[in-house]
Amino acid sequence: MSRKVPKRVFLTEDQMPTKWYNVRADMKEQHAPYLHPGTMQPVTLDDLLPIFCTELAKQEADNVTRYIDIPEEVQDFYKIFRPSPLIRAYELEKALDTPAKIYYKFEGNNTSGSHKLNSAAAQVYYAKEQGLSGLTTETGAGQWGTALAMACAYFNIPLSVFMVKVSSEQKPYRKAIIETFGADLIPSPSDTTNIGRKILQEHPGTGGSLGCAISEAIERAVSTPGYRYVLGSVLNQVLLHQSIIGEEAKMQMEVIDEYPDIVIGCAGGGSNLGGIMAPFMRDRLEGKRHPYFIAVEPASCPSLTRGRYAYDFCDTGHVTPLAKMYTLGAGFMPSPNHAGGLRYHGMSPIISKLYHDGYLDEAVAVEQTKVFDAATIFAKNETILPAPESSHAIRVAIDEALKCKESGEAKTILFNLTGTGYFDMHAYMDYKEGKMNDYVPTDADLEQGFATLPSIPGIQ
Amino acid sequence: MSRKVPKRVFLTEDQMPTKWYNVRADMKEQHAPYLHPGTMQPVTLDDLLPIFCTELAKQEADNVTRYIDIPEEVQDFYKIFRPSPLIRAYELEKALDTPAKIYYKFEGNNTSGSHKLNSAAAQVYYAKEQGLSGLTTETGAGQWGTALAMACAYFNIPLSVFMVKVSSEQKPYRKAIIETFGADLIPSPSDTTNIGRKILQEHPGTGGSLGCAISEAIERAVSTPGYRYVLGSVLNQVLLHQSIIGEEAKMQMEVIDEYPDIVIGCAGGGSNLGGIMAPFMRDRLEGKRHPYFIAVEPASCPSLTRGRYAYDFCDTGHVTPLAKMYTLGAGFMPSPNHAGGLRYHGMSPIISKLYHDGYLDEAVAVEQTKVFDAATIFAKNETILPAPESSHAIRVAIDEALKCKESGEAKTILFNLTGTGYFDMHAYMDYKEGKMNDYVPTDADLEQGFATLPSIPGIQ
Repeated sequence: MSRKVPKRVFLTEDQMPTKWYNVRADMKEQHAPYLHPGTMQPVTLDDLLPIFCTELAKQEADNVTRYIDIPEEVQDFYKIFRPSPLIRAYELEKALDTPAKIYYKFEGNNTSGSHKLNSAAAQVYYAKEQGLSGLTTETGAGQWGTALAMACAYFNIPLSVFMVKVSSEQKPYRKAIIETFGADLIPSPSDTTNIGRKILQEHPGTGGSLGCAISEAIERAVSTPGYRYVLGSVLNQVLLHQSIIGEEAKMQMEVIDEYPDIVIGCAGGGSNLGGIMAPFMRDRLEGKRHPYFIAVEPASCPSLTRGRYAYDFCDTGHVTPLAKMYTLGAGFMPSPNHAGGLRYHGMSPIISKLYHDGYLDEAVAVEQTKVFDAATIFAKNETILPAPESSHAIRVAIDEALKCKESGEAKTILFNLTGTGYFDMHAYMDYKEGKMNDYVPTDADLEQGFATLPSIPGIQ
Repeated sequence: MSRKVPKRVFLTEDQMPTKWYNVRADMKEQHAPYLHPGTMQPVTLDDLLPIFCTELAKQEADNVTRYIDIPEEVQDFYKIFRPSPLIRAYELEKALDTPAKIYYKFEGNNTSGSHKLNSAAAQVYYAKEQGLSGLTTETGAGQWGTALAMACAYFNIPLSVFMVKVSSEQKPYRKAIIETFGADLIPSPSDTTNIGRKILQEHPGTGGSLGCAISEAIERAVSTPGYRYVLGSVLNQVLLHQSIIGEEAKMQMEVIDEYPDIVIGCAGGGSNLGGIMAPFMRDRLEGKRHPYFIAVEPASCPSLTRGRYAYDFCDTGHVTPLAKMYTLGAGFMPSPNHAGGLRYHGMSPIISKLYHDGYLDEAVAVEQTKVFDAATIFAKNETILPAPESSHAIRVAIDEALKCKESGEAKTILFNLTGTGYFDMHAYMDYKEGKMNDYVPTDADLEQGFATLPSIPGIQ
């Protein structure tokens, strides 16, 4: 079949963007400042330096520099797996019999299996540049831990990963790949930190939680000379690094004379949607174009659709700064039956602000059986097995394409396919066997979470 | 860093080869004919038609047509994941401190995780074209079963996969991905075939074997109207389809003004080496160039380095035609401790003939701890986690690069990286924990295998 647009649109290495785009420089209003968890006063750069690499702390605070140069060494690393392809979903379109044109940016074709490597590469580079001795982080589902272990192997810097204990037991292969790349993996809670020992004493036999793992990782970082803590989502710096996804996608669409009518990304902490939307949001903020943005979240953890826009802790352990964001409350416990990630109680402050101010047009919450229905249709037709997280975006892309079938409109739909599902086969098995759980929190469940929101004198 | 040669060399969709190369058309002598297992006479096309698709049976027999058109529908399928990148191993070269230039063709960036999809796409297309009702196959490690399930989902044709029972239990995720693509997976031996029931009666509780799974798959194919059997390695047709790997690699090297001094592929059944070497072997057979070819096999299953060049059955069940090839005897039992594939007792008749006649220069057998040493060095530097099979080629590529370091020669090395190790983490864990088994068969072990070679009056 002769097609005007190729199945996969590539850029050459020379065409790869050399700058990240900082959307905050174009935002009419900034998100509210982070607050120090002790004083409840806006954090200063100095507050952040014991936790974060200096350069990353600066990026976290920078809301004026529109474009930030990607260091040459990071560009070299990116060239191992970037530019990534933009793919026209011809086969999916045919299966849906839709006039819509569906494109996806595929970030899963690197060994980490996800887009997390874009920020891992940058964060580890800056740590190396600063002459740090090592890094700590936490990982839940394991994508971030894998990406960071790969980047640390490449830049030759030690890494300790605190992995939620129950995850490290349920996902021994994730543990194995992280260790193959040379990282030290500690099931959390552990007896290697004060907070870990305290939790173990209070809750013997606990399987751990992301909140506990964060607390242990931060304690290890601040108590080990030359160590810092790194994080794979939510933060401004992460959205900055992930902007390369959207920048490439925009260039690739220009090559084939396309521009998206609809831009779709899944939203857990915000790194996925933040990445794909970046240059299109720039067009929107500049008033040049008006693409329609959709964030997709799991119905089991609906921070944008049912959460509150309020100051909250970023972790359940209450050791991180507070951010103003859409949140279910740091004490909200998402269903353990939900496959994959996207189970974060809060949302990137940038995404939250854009949604609150109406620049992000719509948030949709989807139930997981319908997500896996979409993943399976996609896999059979496009022959890529998508990660459960990314499949949330596939679900809504399919729904939008089916609306086009009804209306006869040939809209151009772009979504971000950030990961592969190789390590999520257990969820696919549950789906296949009809064991999927479509839990949706009741209003009472949500109230329990909201009750954990902090009360801040003079603010909320 | 500004580099003359990019990290990844891509071809555009338009540049993708439109013909497969049939190396037999250039071979000075052909491999000996297949023999019918009943009559021990050369097989005819008619003998093959109840088992194989008609077009594939013709390709199996064709030793005169130099180039065979890739059907347009297969080209469309290929474009979902092809052309695949040729990658310069800059990071590995640096780690080895070698003057050698190392390139690898990366076939692992599709969801099946391996090059097997190249032949699966072709075989399923021809089955569809012939109007067949369905296909059967067997799978051991699971790469072929996964690739075939994907191709059958794409062309919408039913598939039954007989998976070695112990593998289906050890690798539930392989089973899950095959089922996600809609294939029917039957642990073998099963009570769904006569041969399966017979084996279950004689060996209750057996974990099965590849030989048994082949026999069940063939029985199911010949006893079900409109069904045929397909196979992912060894056969001439498979090497034909895999030639696209080498054809692309040669074009990519031309783009950057390179030509390999050494071409390396792992060798189990032969589809990997056969694919990468194809156009370079053409140059060799035409007397134009003289690249050095190395086949790499596991020391635990050394068909080329320690086997006999003789007629043998292609399966342990003795239902397939006999082929003249390097073999350890169809009754040879490779160590169950060997990770991954490459555990086949025989070798592609084409590869065998080329090796016997001196066109394939060298065969090397490597022990698996050294293979995983190489895999780990490669993963940490190139950030791709290689499949155990492909890591055999990495081992020898590294060894050749280290020889260059000794001699100061800047040789150009090309190897075939046909798969990723996502589903082989258990082997990586064993390696990490020092539990790897470096079993090498004794001469007495080999004699037991050779004792199972058939005696054919007037021939051997």
